[in-house]
Amino acid sequence: MVFVTRRETFSAAHRLFNPDLTDEENEKIFGKCSNPNWHGHNYVLEVVVAGEINPETGFVIDVKELKEIINKYVISKVDHKNLNIDTDFMRGIIPSAENIAVAIWNQIKDRIPYGKLYSVKLSETENNFFEYRGE
Amino acid sequence: MVFVTRRETFSAAHRLFNPDLTDEENEKIFGKCSNPNWHGHNYVLEVVVAGEINPETGFVIDVKELKEIINKYVISKVDHKNLNIDTDFMRGIIPSAENIAVAIWNQIKDRIPYGKLYSVKLSETENNFFEYRGE
Amino acid sequence: MVFVTRRETFSAAHRLFNPDLTDEENEKIFGKCSNPNWHGHNYVLEVVVAGEINPETGFVIDVKELKEIINKYVISKVDHKNLNIDTDFMRGIIPSAENIAVAIWNQIKDRIPYGKLYSVKLSETENNFFEYRGE
Amino acid sequence: MVFVTRRETFSAAHRLFNPDLTDEENEKIFGKCSNPNWHGHNYVLEVVVAGEINPETGFVIDVKELKEIINKYVISKVDHKNLNIDTDFMRGIIPSAENIAVAIWNQIKDRIPYGKLYSVKLSETENNFFEYRGE
Amino acid sequence: MVFVTRRETFSAAHRLFNPDLTDEENEKIFGKCSNPNWHGHNYVLEVVVAGEINPETGFVIDVKELKEIINKYVISKVDHKNLNIDTDFMRGIIPSAENIAVAIWNQIKDRIPYGKLYSVKLSETENNFFEYRGE
Amino acid sequence: MVFVTRRETFSAAHRLFNPDLTDEENEKIFGKCSNPNWHGHNYVLEVVVAGEINPETGFVIDVKELKEIINKYVISKVDHKNLNIDTDFMRGIIPSAENIAVAIWNQIKDRIPYGKLYSVKLSETENNFFEYRGE
Repeated sequence: MVFVTRRETFSAAHRLFNPDLTDEENEKIFGKCSNPNWHGHNYVLEVVVAGEINPETGFVIDVKELKEIINKYVISKVDHKNLNIDTDFMRGIIPSAENIAVAIWNQIKDRIPYGKLYSVKLSETENNFFEYRGE
Repeated sequence: MVFVTRRETFSAAHRLFNPDLTDEENEKIFGKCSNPNWHGHNYVLEVVVAGEINPETGFVIDVKELKEIINKYVISKVDHKNLNIDTDFMRGIIPSAENIAVAIWNQIKDRIPYGKLYSVKLSETENNFFEYRGE
Repeated sequence: MVFVTRRETFSAAHRLFNPDLTDEENEKIFGKCSNPNWHGHNYVLEVVVAGEINPETGFVIDVKELKEIINKYVISKVDHKNLNIDTDFMRGIIPSAENIAVAIWNQIKDRIPYGKLYSVKLSETENNFFEYRGE
Repeated sequence: MVFVTRRETFSAAHRLFNPDLTDEENEKIFGKCSNPNWHGHNYVLEVVVAGEINPETGFVIDVKELKEIINKYVISKVDHKNLNIDTDFMRGIIPSAENIAVAIWNQIKDRIPYGKLYSVKLSETENNFFEYRGE
Repeated sequence: MVFVTRRETFSAAHRLFNPDLTDEENEKIFGKCSNPNWHGHNYVLEVVVAGEINPETGFVIDVKELKEIINKYVISKVDHKNLNIDTDFMRGIIPSAENIAVAIWNQIKDRIPYGKLYSVKLSETENNFFEYRGE
Repeated sequence: MVFVTRRETFSAAHRLFNPDLTDEENEKIFGKCSNPNWHGHNYVLEVVVAGEINPETGFVIDVKELKEIINKYVISKVDHKNLNIDTDFMRGIIPSAENIAVAIWNQIKDRIPYGKLYSVKLSETENNFFEYRGE
């Protein structure tokens, strides 16, 4: 079994805000991340697929094909978008990096044609990284 | 003469939009960068000061002092902000990376106590970099 | 379960030296790393916490809070310090990267308020990385 | 148990090509990666060894020793080489990154004197990474 | 005047070889870089354009347009190619990084529609960088 | 004219301290950088040579030769050393990054056999960079 990782990036706006809480509570929990005028990030996404090597090709999955799946189901919906407003698969979800990673997992886990999805890694800044393995 | 560079980062939302143009013209020029719901970036800022070494300290300028100047006059006004709405020194300016770099130059050029400001470098994504040297 | 990683850096001096061995033995085992006048590194520390997402916040643990814990219990004791002399939690321990990683684990494992400590990763140079998972 | 990682790099030419398939099939599967005139990469290799810390040295394995093993059995055979033609341990193997990672694992797994080989990671470009753990 | 940099990458095979010299001389000058079976690199290319900001757009040159120029005239001719054999603009030129940088300059210098070409930077490995400014 | 850059790294201990000042003055100017028990860094050094391309080789200077010069005259004297005590070319000089860059310039400027030394760049941490061009 080999683990194949494809790295993609996207740039998005978001705001951490829980509509069930008051503005004061949101400000207390989320601080500057709750700015009502939004802020944004260059997110770095790594999708890891685990599987057996196909002896005919030497591939677990062709990374070009993996790239197309990520672009079609994720990047096209988040790049240069507002994650709170524009992204269908984030509707009703607080766009913390943890929640974005889980939502990306759900968005692609049944669309990997060879091997299976092992991990979704998301970095929000150069110092904060998040990983979800479906467990 | 030695060139001293301090690197800082900030995360901000913005939208490329010229209010003197129609929506169609904005869309044609700026494409996805003109999304009315905003998008955002992790900007990397490098401020370069050039000057003589002070023989008593071995410093051109103490990088801690340079960091404080950058934080006070730039980072506090752009980090976790919307560059079109929240940042006083960007008012009325299209927030392209070129214009942000020039505005940051103007914001700090008279506030460097030792040596003088030589360059402001700004990266908007890992593939696009911008530099202004006041010329 | 999501894995949340916070990255911090520190700059420290150290020397690899086992007081139970002769100078010749130390020199033979540790070579230039045993220089009696010390050398140093920019260490990169990554602390990984694993836990469930709190539905109210979208966080496993607020990375600002994780950062404060790391700074209070680790960075303040190692940054711009001599790891053989200045750092209480390294007393009597050869400051190899392996031992530093284990000592940092012990220093913070009972101080993580949400989720639990999963991994401590330490890079000593750009080519040498070390990880301890408490196993 | 601590995980010790040594990072090395090598620059090599290769071509993805399965001699059991026709030229058309190779072109269809491998596209530009099958260019008969070759192409090449700067590969980044990370070798991870897991083991107990030796209390006398503070090491799982001296990274200098690990570096020498990797250089002797891997780097000297792949750096500035053609992986399809020059490298003995790749003979008869399609040089996909997956297959290179597995071949490097086989090349060094019985040569680690302390601890045991845990993982071989190989990046082929800045966006594509591959890992084999011998499972 | 602002300097705008676009970063692109390409993977290519090459061999350092001067046909006017004997094999022994080539081996003496170029060593392992002269391997007759080729080797290769992930090259990182940075193209720097200098110019005035267009007040209507905030751009010196739209980086998307700069990217398309680089891809059309350079990347499409070098990526997954053999620089000694496949690349028209390298014909008869020893493909040292210095010569590649100059050839890329010549390839694009008259095709920059706004501002003018200021610099071509090329990294061949993570430790070797080359820059040509047309002087 | 092409600019050729060779990147090398070294790990060293140092302390910022001016013996002409009192301990209180040193503490006030240098703060934690003046820790009498030392601290240290992984320094990244880039040496830039500018010159004409030799048509026989395609090189300004063979980077292997440049690497050997840097290693002989600089790295061997600073790597795993104490810059205040062990390094002959730093004797009597406060080891600020500015002063180290100038001292490295003086150490190698007359030893470049092809082209001439254009710049010495030194990074002390990932956020602080220093450059000297002999002016």
